[in-house]
Amino acid sequence: MVSVLRVVFLGLLILVSLRMTAQDFDPVNYVNPFIGTSNYGATNPGAIAPRGMASVSPFNVAGRIDLNPLEKDSQWLSNPYVYENTFLTGFSHVNISGVGCPDLGVIITMPTTGALETNHQKYGSTYTEETAKAGYYSTKLKKYDVEVQATASTRTGVTRYSFPAGKSNILLNLGLGLTNEQGAMAHIVSPTEIEGMRMVGSFCYNNPEAAYPVYFVAKFSKPADNFGVWKTPYKNEGEEAQWMAYNGKTRIKERFSREVVGDSIGAYMTYDFSSPEQVEVKIGVSYVSIENARDNLENEVGDSSFEEVYAQTKTEWKKKLRVVEVEGGTEDEKTIFYTALYHTQIHPNIFNDVNGEYPEIATGKIGKTEGTRYTTFSLWDTYRNYHQLMSLLYPQEQLDMVKSMLEMYDENGWLPKWELNSTETFTMVGDPAAIVLADTYLRGLTDFDVDKAYEAMLKSATQIEENPLRPGLEEYLKKGYVSVDAGVPGPVSVTQEYNAADYAIALLAKELGKEEDHEVFKERSVSYRKLYNSDSKFLQPKHIDGDWLEGFDPLAGANFTKNPGFIEGNAWQYLFMLSHDAEGLIQLMGGKVAYEKKLDAVFNEGQFDMANEPDFAYPYLYNFIPGSEHKAQKKVQELLKEYYKNSPDGLPGNDDTGTMSAWAVYSMMGFYPQVPAETTYSLTAPIFDKIKINLNTDFYPKENLVIIKEEVSGKNKAGEIFIDNSPLNTFFIKHETLINSNELLFFQDLE
Amino acid sequence: MVSVLRVVFLGLLILVSLRMTAQDFDPVNYVNPFIGTSNYGATNPGAIAPRGMASVSPFNVAGRIDLNPLEKDSQWLSNPYVYENTFLTGFSHVNISGVGCPDLGVIITMPTTGALETNHQKYGSTYTEETAKAGYYSTKLKKYDVEVQATASTRTGVTRYSFPAGKSNILLNLGLGLTNEQGAMAHIVSPTEIEGMRMVGSFCYNNPEAAYPVYFVAKFSKPADNFGVWKTPYKNEGEEAQWMAYNGKTRIKERFSREVVGDSIGAYMTYDFSSPEQVEVKIGVSYVSIENARDNLENEVGDSSFEEVYAQTKTEWKKKLRVVEVEGGTEDEKTIFYTALYHTQIHPNIFNDVNGEYPEIATGKIGKTEGTRYTTFSLWDTYRNYHQLMSLLYPQEQLDMVKSMLEMYDENGWLPKWELNSTETFTMVGDPAAIVLADTYLRGLTDFDVDKAYEAMLKSATQIEENPLRPGLEEYLKKGYVSVDAGVPGPVSVTQEYNAADYAIALLAKELGKEEDHEVFKERSVSYRKLYNSDSKFLQPKHIDGDWLEGFDPLAGANFTKNPGFIEGNAWQYLFMLSHDAEGLIQLMGGKVAYEKKLDAVFNEGQFDMANEPDFAYPYLYNFIPGSEHKAQKKVQELLKEYYKNSPDGLPGNDDTGTMSAWAVYSMMGFYPQVPAETTYSLTAPIFDKIKINLNTDFYPKENLVIIKEEVSGKNKAGEIFIDNSPLNTFFIKHETLINSNELLFFQDLE
Repeated sequence: MVSVLRVVFLGLLILVSLRMTAQDFDPVNYVNPFIGTSNYGATNPGAIAPRGMASVSPFNVAGRIDLNPLEKDSQWLSNPYVYENTFLTGFSHVNISGVGCPDLGVIITMPTTGALETNHQKYGSTYTEETAKAGYYSTKLKKYDVEVQATASTRTGVTRYSFPAGKSNILLNLGLGLTNEQGAMAHIVSPTEIEGMRMVGSFCYNNPEAAYPVYFVAKFSKPADNFGVWKTPYKNEGEEAQWMAYNGKTRIKERFSREVVGDSIGAYMTYDFSSPEQVEVKIGVSYVSIENARDNLENEVGDSSFEEVYAQTKTEWKKKLRVVEVEGGTEDEKTIFYTALYHTQIHPNIFNDVNGEYPEIATGKIGKTEGTRYTTFSLWDTYRNYHQLMSLLYPQEQLDMVKSMLEMYDENGWLPKWELNSTETFTMVGDPAAIVLADTYLRGLTDFDVDKAYEAMLKSATQIEENPLRPGLEEYLKKGYVSVDAGVPGPVSVTQEYNAADYAIALLAKELGKEEDHEVFKERSVSYRKLYNSDSKFLQPKHIDGDWLEGFDPLAGANFTKNPGFIEGNAWQYLFMLSHDAEGLIQLMGGKVAYEKKLDAVFNEGQFDMANEPDFAYPYLYNFIPGSEHKAQKKVQELLKEYYKNSPDGLPGNDDTGTMSAWAVYSMMGFYPQVPAETTYSLTAPIFDKIKINLNTDFYPKENLVIIKEEVSGKNKAGEIFIDNSPLNTFFIKHETLINSNELLFFQDLE
Repeated sequence: MVSVLRVVFLGLLILVSLRMTAQDFDPVNYVNPFIGTSNYGATNPGAIAPRGMASVSPFNVAGRIDLNPLEKDSQWLSNPYVYENTFLTGFSHVNISGVGCPDLGVIITMPTTGALETNHQKYGSTYTEETAKAGYYSTKLKKYDVEVQATASTRTGVTRYSFPAGKSNILLNLGLGLTNEQGAMAHIVSPTEIEGMRMVGSFCYNNPEAAYPVYFVAKFSKPADNFGVWKTPYKNEGEEAQWMAYNGKTRIKERFSREVVGDSIGAYMTYDFSSPEQVEVKIGVSYVSIENARDNLENEVGDSSFEEVYAQTKTEWKKKLRVVEVEGGTEDEKTIFYTALYHTQIHPNIFNDVNGEYPEIATGKIGKTEGTRYTTFSLWDTYRNYHQLMSLLYPQEQLDMVKSMLEMYDENGWLPKWELNSTETFTMVGDPAAIVLADTYLRGLTDFDVDKAYEAMLKSATQIEENPLRPGLEEYLKKGYVSVDAGVPGPVSVTQEYNAADYAIALLAKELGKEEDHEVFKERSVSYRKLYNSDSKFLQPKHIDGDWLEGFDPLAGANFTKNPGFIEGNAWQYLFMLSHDAEGLIQLMGGKVAYEKKLDAVFNEGQFDMANEPDFAYPYLYNFIPGSEHKAQKKVQELLKEYYKNSPDGLPGNDDTGTMSAWAVYSMMGFYPQVPAETTYSLTAPIFDKIKINLNTDFYPKENLVIIKEEVSGKNKAGEIFIDNSPLNTFFIKHETLINSNELLFFQDLE
């Protein structure tokens, strides 16, 4: 009875609050782009539209190590902006967010005043009054008293510089960049336009041969009084150099209006203002051509003012973020939540131009899409929770991502592993694409060529020769594991990853009625068990002959140190990774008690790593231990509190193209995709009093799903969960059940 | 009587020989492009069409100093090819001939066999079986057993590579070059086409800010089996470099088909031939755009075979060179003569594309010409004899050159000084354009805007502030000379050059009826006299207050050593330079005896420099000393014999874009333009028995002028000269007289 009354009461409340939120609630106000800009979160506070190809990030990672403790060339640094740094050398117009390797961070504008200076070490400035919102960034450069405002449409970065009276310059530095690639072209078309290109690539210091161009067109709202190009050449050696007074020195090519190419070049526009003036700069980008960059700019932005572009982008963000509406919780919690959701909408990003063109992977051809071609697939990260979240909240986008992956298969002959701008960077291990494809299909998003997808999965799962996705496959098929003798880094991790992929194939095979495949792959999916050493109670690296590798240290491999068995982690952080075989591991360990004890130990001994993906699902594993489910609730809440904050260090580590943020979004909503490719969620407890998920009715039967947290005193109902007024009596729920329900209700203990 | 008989007899002879030559005489057979490729002649034996924008020169000046004693980076070297060098690293497709500073020598192809190697130090080869003709070059690369043949149309270089069976490569090295500029773009469009650009400029190590692009399209007759681009990046420094295994190393971008830019890049096409095969490569160039380079290639060459292109170019050369037909003389003398004429047809070269477009000077705009836009104006050299020869032999071209110079004035606000590809290189001194314009007009080639020309001359002659052509003008106008205190290099030389220009202006002013200007400039034209020191009997550098600079050494300045008074020469080499004031100098020196004695001393004391322009007219000065004219004849013949040979060292020094060769052409024909802008020729004696100059009847009244050398025994007629059967009784003849005559007859002593 209580519950019926409650439902009626809540129903009224919902109606009221719906009307309220529809008019007043703006999640955009809860985005703090500074979250993740410290503690190696590797996000940036720059202005970007949802899944934008272009963005405008403050660039403060170059030069003056006294002011920039995290300087790009003095260490491994993967982001254009670091909160602690204070020396800014411009605003980069293509950027990657939340990754672990440097790339892009190029097409850098910088306003200066006074005499022209092209050396960033000299023209850089400290800054103050930073503001960052979804689609907007601003700051004031102390050295020049210039205010910079930035916004962006999908493929165009827009900056506005408020100059004092006097001589002012807008530099376009094409030498500087976060990428370690070099080479650019600049061509001043007129006093209001510069076109050009910049080479980028070698992500994670891999595959430098594939470095590729990004093209741009920059339009200036006011014609420059003077303009030019600069070039810093190689320093010639040998006798001839004695006649070259200019040897190795930067040269200014004033009013030069032909193409200039070189490893270190730039262009500038100069103004002489009699009173304070604003200049707006619009930079359209494209990975296809200068013409397309211009076309992107014209189509998206054209003659729109800065304000108009920002208003449009803000509207897009609002639309995006209102897919979930929350009530209750603190302002900080709301900000953490919506910023996390915001961070899931940066990558994968749009790769095709307005006209549909994009550079294909591997073919060297220009492809054309009718829909959206996505890029930046950090699949080793994102297969675990990110794409599941996208399937729930943005099913059309998830389908387009799957289609993009299948296009890559068409073009390249292989599914992507870590694809960036149509280059395969071969970063990380495993065969994650199969999992994403299977997971999407099994969640009911079936509008893609599943036969092709299945064929592609099987290819990487079975082709032994010249298989770029699954090194060590021959051993894996023969022995069930990749040995330390295979020459494959992290063979235990690799074995587990292949198991995870094979499990996904097994599930999809079953769905497609391929029973035989299902059996084969299901069996393959638990072969990691052969690496379980019942003496050490760990998974351990093994020789091909079955002997354990000597000198096993379960702690080796933490903090990115080298490790003979694991990738980016140690034996603790991988032990429980394969949730799909939680029952198998329980058996290996000798039962639930031992399992729980070991799981407790992960946390108690400080071995849980919130900053990397392999142990992401660990806290939810308590749901496999009846009676200990409250530990999952507690642990998730603790981790959220400890690692996710409304501050620059508010991410546990690299955002991993939104994977870290997806963990927070799910966890704050009270459920989590426990097993990749399995559609069952693990349930804990929501952070907010009420969460309304607005579902896309093109794909889902209901307009929305409401999640309620009701705090109750006493232990009666505490921890109980109701689905559409019926007690659930389990801590797992199928995706299918969830999307067919109206309300998920968590009773929580009012402590 | 004798002479009348002779004339009749000769008349018959002429008829006979005319018929003979019309059918059989091919001056192209007398071109030896190796002349000038040693002894710093700075010509190259490459294939070129008359005044071609493109040419294909063997490139043997890079790397392996053991094989290339004249290596481009180990010394001041201004040519892509040196006869003594033996290590060849390719074939450059834009080149300058006969200049004293390095530039161009880029877009370098190289055939190799076996594994791909992109380092020219490693892939270079020795060679054998060199052949060079007008429009043709061939050699065999020893290392690869590959024959290379080259020809060219005006804007397209064509090479043919005869490969043995097996793996072969055609490299297109865009890093290597004679220029010390860097930066290129390469884009493999298809297995038969590469497009791109290369930065060039900084001629004479001046004005590096003006470095500019040359564009190209390369078409291959056979589709490559494989292709790619290479790039050698900067070497990164700092901590980050430790993760870059590829740091600073050349990377091969196999099958890469996007644009690649950088300071050191190249592209390659690879073949795998089952039997010996030929590949033809056509490279169209343009200074405007890739599109124009493609258009130039298509329009000029299209699908023509190597043989067809060569046949066409050979025909053009034949037409060009047959403007003069000679009889008698040795085979070597004919070869020296026609090679010299050939060398006058390299520069100034055509700068506009087939569609008329060219980059304007200074404006940054693309201009369009209805006629021909010329470039490479080495005017300090060419004002002395080259343009006079062009007016006589190729009046339409000379007019087009004048029009190009006036276009430059329109574009730049100033006439050219040393213009190269629409950059003002500011090489050398003086104000030579005025002389060329006046000289052309006064020779009757008046079809240009003489008012504009006059305005342009006056501007540089009178504008004191911000005058890039005449530094030190203020002093010059005030004092009559540029002093050593003016901060202008070589102030004595500069004063003399300004006098020469002012003399030209005076002559043109008179012709245009500007009597007042005539008087002013005539007076200005002899102000060098103030620098004559009657004690030393030399022109000497002077202080602004009138004192001589102490420590005068008439020998200082020889061999390009520094000199306070003179540019590229010493006091001997400049003393007699101003032929227009020969009478004035005779007076200064105290009469003809002293003058002759000093002139003798120039030669006797080894101070005459055949390798540079200031004393070019010295030997002819004996014609100003009645009774000593035979010395002019003798000296000219001696100098021809000593310095002009049918061998690689067959030029006295830098050809100076044909000026050195023009001296030989005139001198071998027996006359010489004594005073720039004055249309009077000095006469000596021809080398050949008969010379027929085929005049352009659009400009001149007669179809041809015949010059006869008749050797007579005894002293009766020796040295006598007849014009149209009348004794001339002087050693000077007006251009006007000459072109209105049929025959110039020299009686020579049969010794």
